[in-house]
Amino acid sequence: MANTELAFLPVAGIRLATIGAGIRYQGRDDLLALELAPGSTTAAVFTRNAFCAAPVTLARHHLSQTAPRYLLINSGNANAGTGAHGLDAARACCAALATVADCRPEEILPFSTGVIGEPLPVERLTAALPALLERLDADAWPVAARAIMTTDTVPKLGSRTFEIGGQTATVTGIAKGAGMICPNMATMLAFIATDAAVAPEVLRACLTAAADRSFNAITIDGDTSTNDACVLVASGALGNAPIVDLTSAESVALHAAVESLCVELATAIVRDGEGATKLVTVRVEQARDRDEARRVAYTIAHSPLVKTALFASDPNWGRILAAVGRAGVEELVIEDVNIWLGAVQIVTAGGRAADYTEAAGAAVMAEAEIVIRVALGRGAVAAEVLTCDFSYDYVRINAEYRS
Amino acid sequence: MANTELAFLPVAGIRLATIGAGIRYQGRDDLLALELAPGSTTAAVFTRNAFCAAPVTLARHHLSQTAPRYLLINSGNANAGTGAHGLDAARACCAALATVADCRPEEILPFSTGVIGEPLPVERLTAALPALLERLDADAWPVAARAIMTTDTVPKLGSRTFEIGGQTATVTGIAKGAGMICPNMATMLAFIATDAAVAPEVLRACLTAAADRSFNAITIDGDTSTNDACVLVASGALGNAPIVDLTSAESVALHAAVESLCVELATAIVRDGEGATKLVTVRVEQARDRDEARRVAYTIAHSPLVKTALFASDPNWGRILAAVGRAGVEELVIEDVNIWLGAVQIVTAGGRAADYTEAAGAAVMAEAEIVIRVALGRGAVAAEVLTCDFSYDYVRINAEYRS
Repeated sequence: MANTELAFLPVAGIRLATIGAGIRYQGRDDLLALELAPGSTTAAVFTRNAFCAAPVTLARHHLSQTAPRYLLINSGNANAGTGAHGLDAARACCAALATVADCRPEEILPFSTGVIGEPLPVERLTAALPALLERLDADAWPVAARAIMTTDTVPKLGSRTFEIGGQTATVTGIAKGAGMICPNMATMLAFIATDAAVAPEVLRACLTAAADRSFNAITIDGDTSTNDACVLVASGALGNAPIVDLTSAESVALHAAVESLCVELATAIVRDGEGATKLVTVRVEQARDRDEARRVAYTIAHSPLVKTALFASDPNWGRILAAVGRAGVEELVIEDVNIWLGAVQIVTAGGRAADYTEAAGAAVMAEAEIVIRVALGRGAVAAEVLTCDFSYDYVRINAEYRS
Repeated sequence: MANTELAFLPVAGIRLATIGAGIRYQGRDDLLALELAPGSTTAAVFTRNAFCAAPVTLARHHLSQTAPRYLLINSGNANAGTGAHGLDAARACCAALATVADCRPEEILPFSTGVIGEPLPVERLTAALPALLERLDADAWPVAARAIMTTDTVPKLGSRTFEIGGQTATVTGIAKGAGMICPNMATMLAFIATDAAVAPEVLRACLTAAADRSFNAITIDGDTSTNDACVLVASGALGNAPIVDLTSAESVALHAAVESLCVELATAIVRDGEGATKLVTVRVEQARDRDEARRVAYTIAHSPLVKTALFASDPNWGRILAAVGRAGVEELVIEDVNIWLGAVQIVTAGGRAADYTEAAGAAVMAEAEIVIRVALGRGAVAAEVLTCDFSYDYVRINAEYRS
């Protein structure tokens, strides 16, 4: 685990606490609570995996009932694939925290991340709750970022500020994720908070748009998790008049700050991709529509052959071309396709660029950050996906994860 | 390379020859010709990758013109992603062989397999053709199977017999492929021949059906090649009355023999999957239609997390469940889903089976051949996909392939 100092700004109205409950790991914190000031508004997006985890089901239900006062997150156990018992376990955790915190169970959103299919150790988790709540602290964001890690090697934490009528508002967030990463309308786990007062519908629109441009545009291994969730809280502690108009300058500023932070956190997740040695942007241009552009970008980003070539710093561009060809684009005219590796054009009109040299391709591939750009020659729509390479360590990490 | 004796039966009317042309490899044969007796009928299926290789384009065109007399196959260079020059190179090879063999260029079907995007060394290839044709031999199937290998570690060759009106007909075939394997209506390279006389439309129907149940139901890494092709030749040397009726006993016997051989060759390809240590059958039952069953099966078979767990012999069945959940099945009712690992039920009604034990799961995962069976509880349609695990060696082989 990297021990770098994490820069962040606390968010008025939000306090955090972590503790080691011994859920799976020993010698580290694995339980996190966020306390949200009364009057906070909360928006969330969740995984689209049909086998969503019990806490996802319960959090979605609670959020539809009332405004949350606490987020409760454990790492080490996903409480997914656990059937009716899993739902009972998630309910028991919320009930126990409600008792300690003197609130209603439906004011608590539960989240879990870790191994799928094992029973959540409810007693160990609930036994830690009284001590957990005694630690609530507005400055606990860095330890919070560490407490939710599983195969992550670095914590992910960032902050932004934006202006509201002469006041400076803050947005701070944490995220976790390094494998089983191919978010679908949501992500791994990310918890973001602002001290601004924001109406729920504005908050929801802001989160959906920001997630679409960040967490929903990354992939490490194409495996969409059962537990993905991304939460955005507005505590209102800043005292501004609530942002109610989606087109207002304040709303635009909020959106820009949240999206910028989400992109930073999503990029940090890809950089920390299991076994990753390279950060790769796949940009597909000149598509007929966004679906088509994303389909081609994801086909390249998921190709094990492209990913192992990236690991090897091998400009084996034929594998990129083959991935474009199998992406299922109807009536693709290969003579209209151009492909670049960084600034080096590798494919012109569907064939190897006349002035391409292996040396030029190899120079780009040796970089730690690589851009693959594909122009389909069919339209004007572009899309980007962030991904990483595929290394021995990906296999090692995922072969050893449970043993 | 394994040196086991390969059992096979020669096919009357078919002669083969191999030679080392130094296309990419040194010290081994990399060029193969099959000579088809006059009057042979030929069927072929090709890759659906939009970036299909130059030889695929030309072979498809030649086959539409006339009955082939020769198949010409090189390994080491795919002649794909090579644009107009690549097509000229494939044409030049056919023209050169036509001169040596005294036939027309359109009577030759060219095939290439190997690295994508490098110019085919036409001179080295054509210089070897006169010596190549002097070696034609009906018993050269084993050396032919070796000459078309690239990252394959074992040659793939098999034979079947079937009865036609008291006579015994033979079907013999070879195949290559170990990576970039996710055939789509065709496969890697496979060349199959029978001495029976078969009408072209019966031969086509037979090949399409057999490929669908064999080469089109395997995946190693999800990467559909630019060069996939599967050819079935009927030399007619047996002297039987040509099989013209798809519903005749002879046609059914032919189909059974060809399909059985294709399944053997396809299974051999998966066993030889780059870095593979396990042979895995993914069977999805109780689907509403075949598309849905195949989609779920392929999602499991392509999941890097499932494949690394298989490599580790880790019964991490949560990863299987997560793959089912993200396969995009509309309105999947997770309470209706059951999953087995071999004979061990791991998921009942969407959750962990009550009597499941890690020891039972681990015992299945320790086997070299594993069956994952998923019942969706939605209908009566089933589909199977053959795949392999994902190991350190897959990364090594594909990181080092060109270096």
